[in-house]
Amino acid sequence: MLENIPGQRELQSMSRKELDALAADIRAFIIEKVAEKGGHLSSNLGTVELTLALFSVFDFPKDKCIWDVGHQSYTYKLLSGRKEGFDSLREFGGMSGFPKRSESAYDAFDTGHSSTSISAGLGMVAARDNRGEDYHVISVIGDGSLTGGMAFEALNNASRIKSNYIIILNDNEMSIARNVGGLRKYLTGIRAGRGYNRVKNDLKKSLTGIPRIGAGLTRIISDIKDSIKEILVPSGMLFENIGITYLGPVDGHNITEMRRILKEARELNRCVLIHVRTQKGKGYKPAEEQPDVFHGIDPFDVATGKVKKKKNGPTWSEVFGAFMAEEGQKNDKLAGITAAMSHNVGLTAFEKSCPERFYDVGIAEQHAVTFAAGMAAAGMHPVTAIFSSFLQRSYDQIAHDVCMQDLPVTFAIDRAGLVGKDGETHQGVFDIGYMTELPNMTVMAPKNAEELTEMLKFAVNEPHPVSVRYPRGEAYTGLSGFRSSIVKGRAEVLHRASGIALLAFGCMNETAEEVRLGLKKQGILATSVNLRFAKPLDTELLLDLAKDHSLFVTMEDGALLGGIGEQIGALMAEKASAVQVMTIGVPDRFIPQGTVDELRKMLNMDAVSITERILETLK
Amino acid sequence: MLENIPGQRELQSMSRKELDALAADIRAFIIEKVAEKGGHLSSNLGTVELTLALFSVFDFPKDKCIWDVGHQSYTYKLLSGRKEGFDSLREFGGMSGFPKRSESAYDAFDTGHSSTSISAGLGMVAARDNRGEDYHVISVIGDGSLTGGMAFEALNNASRIKSNYIIILNDNEMSIARNVGGLRKYLTGIRAGRGYNRVKNDLKKSLTGIPRIGAGLTRIISDIKDSIKEILVPSGMLFENIGITYLGPVDGHNITEMRRILKEARELNRCVLIHVRTQKGKGYKPAEEQPDVFHGIDPFDVATGKVKKKKNGPTWSEVFGAFMAEEGQKNDKLAGITAAMSHNVGLTAFEKSCPERFYDVGIAEQHAVTFAAGMAAAGMHPVTAIFSSFLQRSYDQIAHDVCMQDLPVTFAIDRAGLVGKDGETHQGVFDIGYMTELPNMTVMAPKNAEELTEMLKFAVNEPHPVSVRYPRGEAYTGLSGFRSSIVKGRAEVLHRASGIALLAFGCMNETAEEVRLGLKKQGILATSVNLRFAKPLDTELLLDLAKDHSLFVTMEDGALLGGIGEQIGALMAEKASAVQVMTIGVPDRFIPQGTVDELRKMLNMDAVSITERILETLK
Repeated sequence: MLENIPGQRELQSMSRKELDALAADIRAFIIEKVAEKGGHLSSNLGTVELTLALFSVFDFPKDKCIWDVGHQSYTYKLLSGRKEGFDSLREFGGMSGFPKRSESAYDAFDTGHSSTSISAGLGMVAARDNRGEDYHVISVIGDGSLTGGMAFEALNNASRIKSNYIIILNDNEMSIARNVGGLRKYLTGIRAGRGYNRVKNDLKKSLTGIPRIGAGLTRIISDIKDSIKEILVPSGMLFENIGITYLGPVDGHNITEMRRILKEARELNRCVLIHVRTQKGKGYKPAEEQPDVFHGIDPFDVATGKVKKKKNGPTWSEVFGAFMAEEGQKNDKLAGITAAMSHNVGLTAFEKSCPERFYDVGIAEQHAVTFAAGMAAAGMHPVTAIFSSFLQRSYDQIAHDVCMQDLPVTFAIDRAGLVGKDGETHQGVFDIGYMTELPNMTVMAPKNAEELTEMLKFAVNEPHPVSVRYPRGEAYTGLSGFRSSIVKGRAEVLHRASGIALLAFGCMNETAEEVRLGLKKQGILATSVNLRFAKPLDTELLLDLAKDHSLFVTMEDGALLGGIGEQIGALMAEKASAVQVMTIGVPDRFIPQGTVDELRKMLNMDAVSITERILETLK
Repeated sequence: MLENIPGQRELQSMSRKELDALAADIRAFIIEKVAEKGGHLSSNLGTVELTLALFSVFDFPKDKCIWDVGHQSYTYKLLSGRKEGFDSLREFGGMSGFPKRSESAYDAFDTGHSSTSISAGLGMVAARDNRGEDYHVISVIGDGSLTGGMAFEALNNASRIKSNYIIILNDNEMSIARNVGGLRKYLTGIRAGRGYNRVKNDLKKSLTGIPRIGAGLTRIISDIKDSIKEILVPSGMLFENIGITYLGPVDGHNITEMRRILKEARELNRCVLIHVRTQKGKGYKPAEEQPDVFHGIDPFDVATGKVKKKKNGPTWSEVFGAFMAEEGQKNDKLAGITAAMSHNVGLTAFEKSCPERFYDVGIAEQHAVTFAAGMAAAGMHPVTAIFSSFLQRSYDQIAHDVCMQDLPVTFAIDRAGLVGKDGETHQGVFDIGYMTELPNMTVMAPKNAEELTEMLKFAVNEPHPVSVRYPRGEAYTGLSGFRSSIVKGRAEVLHRASGIALLAFGCMNETAEEVRLGLKKQGILATSVNLRFAKPLDTELLLDLAKDHSLFVTMEDGALLGGIGEQIGALMAEKASAVQVMTIGVPDRFIPQGTVDELRKMLNMDAVSITERILETLK
């Protein structure tokens, strides 16, 4: 299977039948590889024919293709000479699951977060035209990504283009979760209706068919296109209204049709949007039926579609979800907000039990946060659950709309810290820095599952903004003997000794406990503190510890720059304390893919490395 | 004039003539006050009648009005009992130039940054409906603000509303600078065309006029509204397409008409957008002719329209502008990008000399940054000039699209640090923190005008992301004897002594020099260092200084949390140095309005306070 991956020329000469056979082989290959390695499945099965059509019409890597989000680029990787890469897909040192310029000249722009592809595409078009170069730029964007505001900012700027630029709207009727809002209704209307373009072509055809009218009138019809357009069903008019030429809708699994429309679009000296209908999970029944489950999936059994890995306990997201479902019953001011990630952040149960207070706003993190601010200003307590790296997009809204007005909004920051195989774009390492910087914000992280629940209880009762951050994966249940109640700005002392103090934030408490036990084996007794609050920091305790400790070891699952370690170091320097502050955390670079354990080892954030470093320092 | 400000009831009973006379009085009052105090003029002159109409139809503060950006709310402040406030408009301790919940119950939501009002409005509607309360929510948003992506995210969610919510699109054909893009063309099309709504009404009128047809058919016409709509000029269709009811366009200076349409909108149980045409600067000739000059203006002479304050030298923005204009001639890879602020950031000359490489993307900071990333990925070197507090909106794009790919984009961060009278929403105090946190980013700030030019030269020749931050106002020209060349990661030692080292970043070098001279008078010689780079920090120099200094005084015009002082403190604590680190900067709270001098004094960031604190510490 796939012994020889055809090049552009071969693809051009292949028949529809041969292409369909190739598409089937590619699907089988992707299913096999994702079943083995885990990865994005539904989105990739939806873009097989689309990518084959692109490859047979365009001349990559001279032409540039930008994949929005990028989790649909497996066929593109396969066709651009990276078949072997799939043996190390998403592994440490292996091939990325997203486009990476450093990986291949075929990858024109790195993606991972939603809705960036049109802006990047317009930038390339501007550079191309300024430099007098000659190539095509294509952005492929899903209908879900189109709900992200920056895609609209870009569309609004696209009308000015006077050279060729192609946007492919990959409409699969859903983003990761179901797509929501007015735009969705609009696109559904088009899908259901008869395409404007097809109507226009039919009209042309019938007119040119009439003797004595022929080509002349057709040209006139083209000239008065604008008027005709307004009379017909307004398919694509939303785009045409803002000056973008609309083609479609077209069946994205019909390679012949796709080729035809791509060739048509290629010839136009302006911005063209091609509306392509595809099906997520196409060709693999379990994924067709549950595309969201197979969006990003762990290794699974192809025959049954069941995930292989056995689960022990609930994930952090599930602990959060259970809290919301229960608290929602008691507290009618509580609202839950997600940006197209209800399932992933664990809000499904709340959605069912409190549907009137559940809001899925689509991929629109900025709106999610200011919407929450509006609710809070009018008497509710919204809980906004967003992945750490995606929350970056609403930094200004957190600062300006929530913190400035000191409004009671809780931020449940999921996937905070190192997340593993999704790599650079998904590591949630900046939130401690950008959240602690903001006035009125409280920043917390729990040591274990039970403490997450306690912190959330604290948060939803605070009349101020509060962040609670927790990592990806199964929730830690150790250290369960320590249950002191949550007091704002107070850390929890787990073990009191002198000399060395381990100061751990959130999930790093698990590591700190290992370090403590390791040091104990060496005859060294260390103080260990569960920091709980990155802000407000428990300065009283820290200054007290400074009296009989000479080394503080801070541990955080986040960037060192702007992190807790830096704050504690600065505090000691300000007070002219003699304490040495060693900081453990993520260094100043983007962290690639790998298992969390592999990454921690690489970054010397694992218990063994930390213990060694402490012993080294003590010498 | 304006002896008695009428209340809602009085307004309701006033004739059109009386209302117009009142509007004229309000205009005269606003012109007089802004001429005296400085402030936003053009936008406020545009919304006088609109606000009068709102006040006579709605019951504030029970009903809620959210003013997007908020710089058009002077009439609203006046009508809601804040006439006296204008005597202290934008002054330290006085009335804000923006809506502030802490100032009045009439201010439903604090604004200052663009495009937030619809999200906040939808949040209030959700809270109102969940809590079973009964009031109206109105968001007033300019056409410029509508180009900000989050406004679109909100519109996309607005179609789901099943209760009353009113968006007033205040279309004055420009934001601060001219509005750009497809949306602008679209709105202009509507303004030029005959309003759909008017056509519909005409049709209704003529049909009901025919005997035997009358009311019955009118109802049918209403039922088939959708079909008619498609046949008519597609005014408002962009909005209707995504499920929002469109009314308009209507003349925003015609109070009677405005009242009628507001009453109509008030009765609908869904999201209604009223398209209102207004004129910026209306009623004051100089502002009508140059609305951008009178957007935000210093005290001026009413008769001539000339600003009173004498200008000595060029502003920091002008120094940046001069660099761009000159460098643009030499370097054809250079591009200049602004988000609707060409004049304010100083790009006008570049716009004229290199129009093909100048891009005004509208109020769309997210797009601006990823657009720059796209250009950089395709061989250009874009310079993105955005105010510090507005740049917050593109934090994720800076991280994900520029830094992650290590692309050569220069960020000219204007209005960095304390900006003065615009207050909380415009202080540019977070950028040092959020920029230094990002891998691959270089963060610089110049001590004086000359150094800004040198830093920009350095930046546009770096094959990496670089930020250069500088404050509002006239560029400092002192310390001109110090001209060591810019070397990445190297600070500039201005005076070498021992004991105390003043470590200043950017504009704080001016203050540090005063402090140094103050200490000298007391017989204390201090080292003074122009840090130049917040990142990479000159750790080598700092560790060297640690050998013969016992006190470091860091000075930065930005937040202490996440700032340079913290970084330097942490470095000293890590290396177990005995140096005490005193940090001068903006404390952990939002900073209100006032002159920069007043604010510095309040925050103990002025030379006198710093000198005192140092002397205190030395005791």
